[in-house]
Amino acid sequence: MNINDVAQKSGVSKTTVSRVLNNEKYVSDEKREKVLSAIKELGYAPNWVARSLVTKKTNLIGVIVPEVDLSFYYSIISEMERIAFERGYKLFICNTLHRPEKEIEYLSLLKEMRVDGLILMHEEMSEQSIKEIKKWGITSLFLSGEILNSDIPSVLIDNYAASKAMTEYLIQLGHKKIQFIAGNESEHATLNSRLAGFLEAVQHSSEEITYKIAYGDYTMESGYEIMKKTLENKKYPTAVFAISDDLAVGAMNCLLDYGFQIPKDISVVGFDASKISIVCRPRLTTVEQPIELLAKTGIEKLIANIGSSIKEKKTYVPYQLLIRESCARFKGGEGLSNLERIRH
Amino acid sequence: MNINDVAQKSGVSKTTVSRVLNNEKYVSDEKREKVLSAIKELGYAPNWVARSLVTKKTNLIGVIVPEVDLSFYYSIISEMERIAFERGYKLFICNTLHRPEKEIEYLSLLKEMRVDGLILMHEEMSEQSIKEIKKWGITSLFLSGEILNSDIPSVLIDNYAASKAMTEYLIQLGHKKIQFIAGNESEHATLNSRLAGFLEAVQHSSEEITYKIAYGDYTMESGYEIMKKTLENKKYPTAVFAISDDLAVGAMNCLLDYGFQIPKDISVVGFDASKISIVCRPRLTTVEQPIELLAKTGIEKLIANIGSSIKEKKTYVPYQLLIRESCARFKGGEGLSNLERIRH
Repeated sequence: MNINDVAQKSGVSKTTVSRVLNNEKYVSDEKREKVLSAIKELGYAPNWVARSLVTKKTNLIGVIVPEVDLSFYYSIISEMERIAFERGYKLFICNTLHRPEKEIEYLSLLKEMRVDGLILMHEEMSEQSIKEIKKWGITSLFLSGEILNSDIPSVLIDNYAASKAMTEYLIQLGHKKIQFIAGNESEHATLNSRLAGFLEAVQHSSEEITYKIAYGDYTMESGYEIMKKTLENKKYPTAVFAISDDLAVGAMNCLLDYGFQIPKDISVVGFDASKISIVCRPRLTTVEQPIELLAKTGIEKLIANIGSSIKEKKTYVPYQLLIRESCARFKGGEGLSNLERIRH
Repeated sequence: MNINDVAQKSGVSKTTVSRVLNNEKYVSDEKREKVLSAIKELGYAPNWVARSLVTKKTNLIGVIVPEVDLSFYYSIISEMERIAFERGYKLFICNTLHRPEKEIEYLSLLKEMRVDGLILMHEEMSEQSIKEIKKWGITSLFLSGEILNSDIPSVLIDNYAASKAMTEYLIQLGHKKIQFIAGNESEHATLNSRLAGFLEAVQHSSEEITYKIAYGDYTMESGYEIMKKTLENKKYPTAVFAISDDLAVGAMNCLLDYGFQIPKDISVVGFDASKISIVCRPRLTTVEQPIELLAKTGIEKLIANIGSSIKEKKTYVPYQLLIRESCARFKGGEGLSNLERIRH
């Protein structure tokens, strides 16, 4: 079957058929309609783009993620794929490895492929990329974070409230020396909110809390290195709050390797409740970002709004503190002296 | 710019241009050449497929993976993406979740998208899918495994030799009761090779070795459940050999949760050297599948052969035994009596 059959069936010229297939102007709505219905009836699908002209959709969703090799991201991607597939959509995963030129190249490919929508998961996207997305006008949504000063809608947890609640939990356990391990030092929204929640709880506590903030990236290796530096400086916290589970597990492994007991000597908490937080021993106390609910809410909201834009600027899904095994009540100076015995 | 400009520039009719764009027959090579060079000169790219007609390539590689949420797979995918991107290729990841109907649907999408090549990572692909790939004639390659009775070429380690070597290591440490944790009970090549290597070492040892083989899937949860069942049956091995790190870490966590010490009470070894094997404590002794080298060899071999087929049926990359902290010499009956004390 070829373009001739479509022309014959629809009663228009081959040139008109080709114009419709190539999405050109100067075809009357009536003729375009005839061609499209002929294509449909004949099941003529010369290629994937031609088909998308019939349905006006490609059923592809682009996903931009900074690093697929972090446990939170691959869990959420796997869940998104499952839900999207059930609804007839496929994901095109773009792993930018924090390189702005990869963002631009992937965006241009996604545009050429005429994807129907975009899920963003990379808060440190370049301004140029955000401008491109705006110019493109594609239905898009930020999942589990947000981009400040942009009008891209988000589906996320209330990071400020969650971080404040977790800090209050540590303070209630009697911890007064807390190490906060942040991601990198850039101005992105999630880090800001989590840091602000932490500072709010610390500064408005009735106890006098001392704290230190350390910056790295979001990897286990980074958590390990930051903890190592802290221990080598002999500034022992009694609790560590890391803003990702990968960072927390890295810190925890460093403590274990230096002979500390968790939570007896030092308490550790993380953020995300990704798979790694249950795999490690002791099991990590952490803030749950509900991965299934985030993936479901995000994908469904995007699909429901394809071709238009999403009205709600921010959709919160509920977070939860998962109290597991990595925290203990701080018992006076005991923890610290124990540390000093080991290290000196 | 539109199809008219292309027609004018190339000196052929619009119908001919449209025929070329839609990849139809009945266009002379000479005219096709003229149209393609006009398209090139004008930079006319009505869509992604039209562009691919010019270059005869889409620079897309399809990747079929059974479950992106396993540490070995997401590590290798991340590495493949990095290398492919550097060489101008993008990956389209198809996560089949072990469902044959997803394989078929993804294959048909990849075909419509005219991907240039295919990386397969799912040994239990249905026969129908393998037939489809053969019929399609696309350049394809199996990475880190193989499909028996197919002529799809593979890049992998020598699983038989690696498994045999690891088993001999356990036997040298004095272990005579070994639990082998396999993946599922199907007839796929990697499982067969690893099991055969294990049996070869066990059956040809000068010591009398007793062993048990348990089947599950490849997840941590499965490793945990298998270990739990073994402990509840009070059949205590002195060493556990799991054929994936996820399975091994699951088994290890179960042992830790039941109060056993690793490696003092029981030794555990895994397979793959995925990230999780370094994250866990004690660090897992495992067989290294060199992820970077596998990814690099696979992607480069595929790209070099796009448009034709790969000659070498099997390309081995070197494995290595990574001796870390999860194994100890078995000291007579001590381990076992220790277990009995805890469990009875």
